This record gives sequence, structure tokens and C-alpha cells, in this order.
Amino acid sequence: MSKEITSRAEDYSKWYNDLVVKSGLADHSAVRGCMVIKPYGYTLWENMRDVLDKMFKETGHVNAYFPLFVPKSLFEAEEKNAEGFAKECAVVTHYRLKTDPNNPGKLIVDPEAKLEEELVVRPTSEAIIWNTYKGWIQSYRDLPILVNQWANVVRWEMRTRLFLRTAEFLWQEGHTAHATKEEAITETTQMLDVYANFVENWMALPVVKGVKTPNERFAGAEDTYCIEALMQDGKALQAGTSHFLGQNFAKAFDVKFSDRENKLDYVWATSWGVSTRLIGALIMAHSDDEGLVLPPRIAPIQVVIVPIYKGEEQKAQIDAKVKGEIVPALKALGISVKYDDSENARPGWKFAEYEMKGVPVRIALGARDLENNVAEVARRDTKEKKAYSLDGLAQQISNLLNDIQSNIYNRALQFRNEHITPADTWEEFMDILENKTGFVAAHWDGTGETEDKIKELSKATIRCIPLDNKAEEGVCILTGKPSAQRVLFARAY
Amino acid sequence: MSKEITSRAEDYSKWYNDLVVKSGLADHSAVRGCMVIKPYGYTLWENMRDVLDKMFKETGHVNAYFPLFVPKSLFEAEEKNAEGFAKECAVVTHYRLKTDPNNPGKLIVDPEAKLEEELVVRPTSEAIIWNTYKGWIQSYRDLPILVNQWANVVRWEMRTRLFLRTAEFLWQEGHTAHATKEEAITETTQMLDVYANFVENWMALPVVKGVKTPNERFAGAEDTYCIEALMQDGKALQAGTSHFLGQNFAKAFDVKFSDRENKLDYVWATSWGVSTRLIGALIMAHSDDEGLVLPPRIAPIQVVIVPIYKGEEQKAQIDAKVKGEIVPALKALGISVKYDDSENARPGWKFAEYEMKGVPVRIALGARDLENNVAEVARRDTKEKKAYSLDGLAQQISNLLNDIQSNIYNRALQFRNEHITPADTWEEFMDILENKTGFVAAHWDGTGETEDKIKELSKATIRCIPLDNKAEEGVCILTGKPSAQRVLFARAY
Ligand SMILES: [Zn+2]
Ligand SMILES: [Zn+2]
Repeated sequence: MSKEITSRAEDYSKWYNDLVVKSGLADHSAVRGCMVIKPYGYTLWENMRDVLDKMFKETGHVNAYFPLFVPKSLFEAEEKNAEGFAKECAVVTHYRLKTDPNNPGKLIVDPEAKLEEELVVRPTSEAIIWNTYKGWIQSYRDLPILVNQWANVVRWEMRTRLFLRTAEFLWQEGHTAHATKEEAITETTQMLDVYANFVENWMALPVVKGVKTPNERFAGAEDTYCIEALMQDGKALQAGTSHFLGQNFAKAFDVKFSDRENKLDYVWATSWGVSTRLIGALIMAHSDDEGLVLPPRIAPIQVVIVPIYKGEEQKAQIDAKVKGEIVPALKALGISVKYDDSENARPGWKFAEYEMKGVPVRIALGARDLENNVAEVARRDTKEKKAYSLDGLAQQISNLLNDIQSNIYNRALQFRNEHITPADTWEEFMDILENKTGFVAAHWDGTGETEDKIKELSKATIRCIPLDNKAEEGVCILTGKPSAQRVLFARAY
Repeated sequence: MSKEITSRAEDYSKWYNDLVVKSGLADHSAVRGCMVIKPYGYTLWENMRDVLDKMFKETGHVNAYFPLFVPKSLFEAEEKNAEGFAKECAVVTHYRLKTDPNNPGKLIVDPEAKLEEELVVRPTSEAIIWNTYKGWIQSYRDLPILVNQWANVVRWEMRTRLFLRTAEFLWQEGHTAHATKEEAITETTQMLDVYANFVENWMALPVVKGVKTPNERFAGAEDTYCIEALMQDGKALQAGTSHFLGQNFAKAFDVKFSDRENKLDYVWATSWGVSTRLIGALIMAHSDDEGLVLPPRIAPIQVVIVPIYKGEEQKAQIDAKVKGEIVPALKALGISVKYDDSENARPGWKFAEYEMKGVPVRIALGARDLENNVAEVARRDTKEKKAYSLDGLAQQISNLLNDIQSNIYNRALQFRNEHITPADTWEEFMDILENKTGFVAAHWDGTGETEDKIKELSKATIRCIPLDNKAEEGVCILTGKPSAQRVLFARAY
């Protein structure tokens, strides 16, 4: 059939791209590096966003909106941050087009409409937000500020991949301001926990919580906490980050507050974000050669019902059962359901289509099934098919959706746990990366130079120092110098 | 007190700006013409967005997301649309900054990172979307496409005002594709009805539904339908538009489909949008010299409770009643409530603050009130105060919120109806515009030239030809030429 996709074994990267496009999640656009998020993909994002937004609000945050553009002079104020993003900034230099005098019907940039100061399209919003917070904060009574923003950002990328790395992407960025260092650090780790909870319990994707090495920190942060997930090809993917920014941005934008003793101090900051990149992680972690496998808790459609019939009379009987009983019963349990009785396609085509789209449960219902008071229920994760009694069907389906959610998670967890491998020599280290793949737990001497050298030789980076790491004496796999703990290396997206 | 605002009588325009800033809805930013939407303002926008989004989904639409940038060659493809927006386009010309060799720590645009083709920051998305639809549509089976996008757009404005006219604003833009002209027109008017329903029943703002004259059409549309509202200063404000785009964009982007008879034809299009500008309309229609007046159905906080007490013991009694009974009872009825027992401010200050913020209902509860089993309830719209029994308080408050919603609407409706004035001569016309203000219903000879001339002489534009207009013979107020109906003129935002 026309919708076939490349298999993972044949070309993992092509499999991924085929899957994203053919399942209707997203597509390439006419704009270099920018994607179109199609309705099915956007609904998935809405589901993820709604859960996260609720979690943010439950932890005391509110949403706001800050400008898309950052004047260059503000952008460069926090030097490390500016340096980190300068190479990937889209820059607005003009504010008008005019008719091309030499080319009727065409437009050119009006050279007379050049901006006095260029505007950077936000790659992240610390600069514009901390410049704003300056006006909001005078005293400890104005703190904390717990604000989140849902927005689009632009980071110019030379090699792009749908969802994983695009020039424009959607994300949320939390930006908080605190009176004390301790409170800011607590916020940073709290939000890391929120992300881990979301990714594990909604996206069914196990993560390692850890802290980045100085080399891998967010530009302008004092500490970057992250959650790292493992994809089916054995590469790691950073699924979310939460940054303790110290007083760096407060100093860059001169944001001070007077404390209870009326003493002036710089404000403490955090920022934290996840993006549409999470959708890429979701796809690569769970899907197979037939298409997407989506966790029920965030799937755009949880259940699809396909009628199997010959003639109007059978169709009418099935319709009555589905529309009159099954759909209302499923909806009453909060289950999203689609009854696909369109006549444009045969059942086999529909089965393949919803398999491609990763709908967790498919119910097929024929005239004979009705007589026998059963329906054929297929689960997407294991492809198992079974006859279910129509009595209490909705509750059985609800239980099945929970089973699928757990099964997908447990499968990913087992895979991940099997792919955290200790290495004690450079040879072991390289062998694991090349052959077994996954995370390698190895000793490292703690210097940026060694980290760079390892990256150069192996294409693996330190994904994180796990938060629950235990102390263990050892020697660096590259330099043989002493080390107090193992860190997690991997090749990564 | 520090939060006082300019009165409407003194300076309407300054009143508006003071109100937006001091109520905490939004503020100016460091970026020319761009605003910061503060948490209180953004929550209001979320409430509006959620209602609209639900209405869009109930009418069969789905959300998607298209690129922020439009390559110049696509932007100019539909000539009228391009011409209409060319003068207000922010243009990205470069994709990198680099360190300024002459100025350590500063950045400059890297001249070597000039784009081959400039990118326009979307002022509206017809071009990028119709270029995408080309890949989605082959046959009538692919139609209709009923897609909406929530996004930021940029239109460079020289004179900006918070919410009403900003360089960047938030909006939704629906873009639909249809097999027939009739279906597209039905969609256009359906969405106009959705907007009117929302603005009247949630924002409590009566509107006139009408169609624009050719002069006032959206650039690239065959017909622009609009809803027009009246502000307290007698100026009109276009609150939403729905465009029948004919086959203009399909022709510009070569989007054809084969119909049931396998005949090729261009696809029919609509687009429709409302923006954060609606918040400006909301403010100007209902608010007063003490602050915002918000309709309960979209207010971020519907009820605020302020305790009045002396000493810990009284505070504890009030706390027990409020947290144990009143708040849960209000929440059970779906009412959003804030209990402000902060010790940073006295009750009088809080009263003024929530008046400024337009919270529809304020409940003050003191120790003596508790003894008498009553609370003092103040409604924001009329400033009326009354003792309410604590028995069944939540239900009484729920009824009161409904009353307030109706009252605000009826007040605006009466004002609007009193300000639709017929004029039969030029003198009457000018007198109404200058002195009474509001809409003027007058005959017009139907030509763009006369319309331009009237605008030049009076600063009034034709807001719309009302959909429910009745035929009436008459003569044009300017030229004396024959006319078949009155149209609505006004000075406008
Ligand atoms: Zn393996
Ligand atoms: Zn009047």
C-alpha cells in the first residue's frame, strides 16, 4: 500500500521521517528548517500542553506573554547567554517591503526602512523577560515571580529534522525570580520533578534525572538539571531542562530587591523548558515499523471503531449499537473515540491507517459479532487481537487503555535499564557505544578538556551526572586520573 | 492613593492606557510597539481563547501550526494581499550574529550570514498556508479543510496602543478550503455568527454584523464580513472579521481539486480571525474611572473575599468560615474565587485594588457579620453594596454573577442603540459625528470615490453594511446621488 514506511532496520533515520510525515503529525514546509505541525500532531501537542499547563498552575505558576523580538542591545547584556545563541539568531533588520521598480508585481526590502537597532527573533527569552522584571521587582514582597510562557522560538539550525531540530519550534519557558538562592534551587529541582513526572507517567518514557557538566550547561546558567531518555536506536535524548541561573541575569539587567532588613541584593533566577522536541522523543521511543505507538494518556484518539458490514441493513444495525451504546459509554468514561464509518475506504485500509497513527485500541464490529454479542478488540502496542463481550465493553476498554499505558512504559523501562552499561576501560567504552549502544556509565576525571577529548574520539557526550548517583572510587576511562563517581555517557540527538 | 487613573472626561486615551497598565493587564516593553501581556491580562486571554477554541471545535475545526516566516517569493504570490501588507512587514535578512571586532562583549549582524531570500515575519498566514494546502488537496475527498491556528503575528505600526494596535499581537486565524463557492460562503457567515455569539454572550458587548465595502475589505478577499462594536467614547471598533476569499489564493498557489465528475477546479477559501485587540474593546466598552469592569463569564477572578478583623481570634473564625464553607461552596458551583487574607495591605486598599482589576463581586466578611450570619457583597458594575445571608450564599452569588453579566450587556446595548443615529444631510452627519458621536446611518452613493471623500472630510469610515439592512430609497449625504440603503458610518479605532 501507498503508506508503507522504511523499516527501522533498513534506515532508522528515514523510518523516523517517513513515520512523522505519513502518520500526519507534521511535514516539511517551504521555509528552510521550519515544519508544519499538522492537525493530528497539533492535537497531540495540545494534549501534552494541557497536562503540563495544569501541573505548572498546580505548582503556583501563571502564564504571561513577552515580545517575540529582542533588541540586540538587550540580547547581548548577559554575555554568556548571548555568546551561546549568537550563531543561531534570525535577525530582523527592516520593517517594510516596497514594490520592485524593475519587476512589476514583485517586492523588495525597502532600504529606507532599516531599523536603527536590529531585533533578534527570540531563541529563548531570559533577556527580554529579565529586562521586564526590572520594572516589576522592588522589594521582597514582589517575590517570588512564578511565570511561564507558551511561545514559538527560533534557533537557526543547519541540519534540521522534524520535531527534533527545527529552526522554529513551540515550547514553554518558565522564568522565575526569587529572594534567596535556596528557594531558586528548590524551584529548579521542583520543575525537573514535574517534567520527569509528565514524561514518565503521561508519555510512558522513563528518564534519568541528572545535572549537566559545566561544558553542557545552558548558556548563562550556574547549573543545568535535565531529564535524559533513551531512544530505540540506543541514542540518548535530552527531554527537558531546568536551569538555576544564579544572579547572572539579575546582574546583567540590574534587578535588585530590598529584603526584610531593607538590604539590597540581586534577585535569584531559574528558567525551565520543554518543547515540541518531546514529540520526537515520543515517536522514537515507542513506535515500530507499522507506525506510531502512542501512550493512551496523551493519544489524540484513544479508540477507533471500524464497522464491518455488507449492505445497508447490517450497517444500520451496527450504527445503532455503536452510536446508541458503545460511543456514549466510552465517552462517559472520558475516553476519546472515533467511529470511522466513512465509505471511502475498506476496513483493511482503515486498520493500516489507524495502526500508522498509533491509535491505542481498535474495535472492529461486524454483523456476526453483534449476533454473538462480541467485538474484536486489537491493541496497538502488542498487536494482540481478542474478542471482548459487548457487556461492560467500555469498562474493559478503559482497563485495557491502562494496561497499554503501563506496558509501553515498562517496555521502554526494560530497554533503558538493559542499556545502562558500565565500562571500565576505553576499549569497553568504545565497544559498548559502537555495538550495544545506550548509556555507558564510566569514570571521568572531571575536567572539561577530557570531556572534549572523549567527545572528539567517540562522538559521545556526558548526558548527565545522575541525581541519585552513588560515590565510587575509580579512574577516568581516558586519562586514568582518579574519579569519585561514574557519569552517564551516550551518543545523543 | 498611588493607583489613581486619569478620568475618562479628562483624557479618554490616557484613561485607557493608565487602566491597562495599573490593572495589571499589560505593559509597554523595551521593544518598539510590542507589549508584555502580564499574568492578569494573559489569564483573561486564556479564558477568551478557551471559549472560542471550544466553539471552533464544536463547528468541526481542528488546530494546526504553520511557520512564523514566509519567504518573500511566497508572500508576494497573491498580489493584492502582498500589496496590502507590504508596508508593515518585519523582515528577517540574516541568520547569525558575531562578536564585534571593534567592541568587545558586543555583537553585530554577521554580513556573511545574509539570507538568499528574505523572510517576512507573518502579518497573516494565507500565503504560507495555501502554499501548504497545495500538498494536501488533490480531490474533493480531501475537502473541506477546516483548520485554525493560534499564533503571534507582526504588523509594523507607527502609532501603537496597548492591545488595540501593537506591532506583535496574539490571535487565531481560521483558514478553510472548500469544494464549492456556496459552502465557503456558508463557512464565512457561520464563523461571523460564532464571533458575534462570543462577543455578545461572553464579552457582554453588542455588535452589528455586516459586510465591508470594497474599499475596506481584507487585502485579497472577495468579501469581508465583520462585527462592529461601539466604545464609550462613541468610536466604533471592528471586533472580528470573516473573509470569503473566493479562489484568489487557490489561483495564486495553484491549488486545484478534482470533483466527483473528475473535473479540475480551483479550491474556494475563507479566513477569519480575532485577536488580543478584543481585550482593548472589552476595556473601553465597560470600564469606568475606578478601573476595569469585567463580564463575569470571562473574568480571571469572579469573586474576591476580603476578611475584616482585629486580632488572631477573629481572623481564625473568619478563616474557618471562608476556607471551610464559602470557598468550597463557590467552587462547587464552578465559580473562581480568591480569598485575599494577605497582611501586606489594609481592606480599603484591597477594595480599591479589586475594583481596579474589575473583579465582578467582592465579599467582605467581618467578625460582627459572622455573628449576624451575613456578609457584605459589593457588585463591581453598579457599585451597589448589600448584606447577604450566609445561608445559601454561593447560590445567591451565582445568581448575582448572572445578573451582572446581563446588566453589563444591557447597559452597553442601550448605549449602542442610542448611538445609531440617522442623518439625512451633510450638516446633520457632521454634527452627529462631532457632538453626539457613535454610528451614523446615512445614504451613500456606493462609490469608492465618495467613500474616500467622506473619510477625508469627516474622518469617518463606513464600518459596514448591516446584514439585516432594509432597503430604503434615498440620496447620498455627500453627492446627492441616488442610494438604495443606509450604511453605518463612524469614527473608529
Ligand atoms: Zn540492545
Ligand atoms: Zn451620548
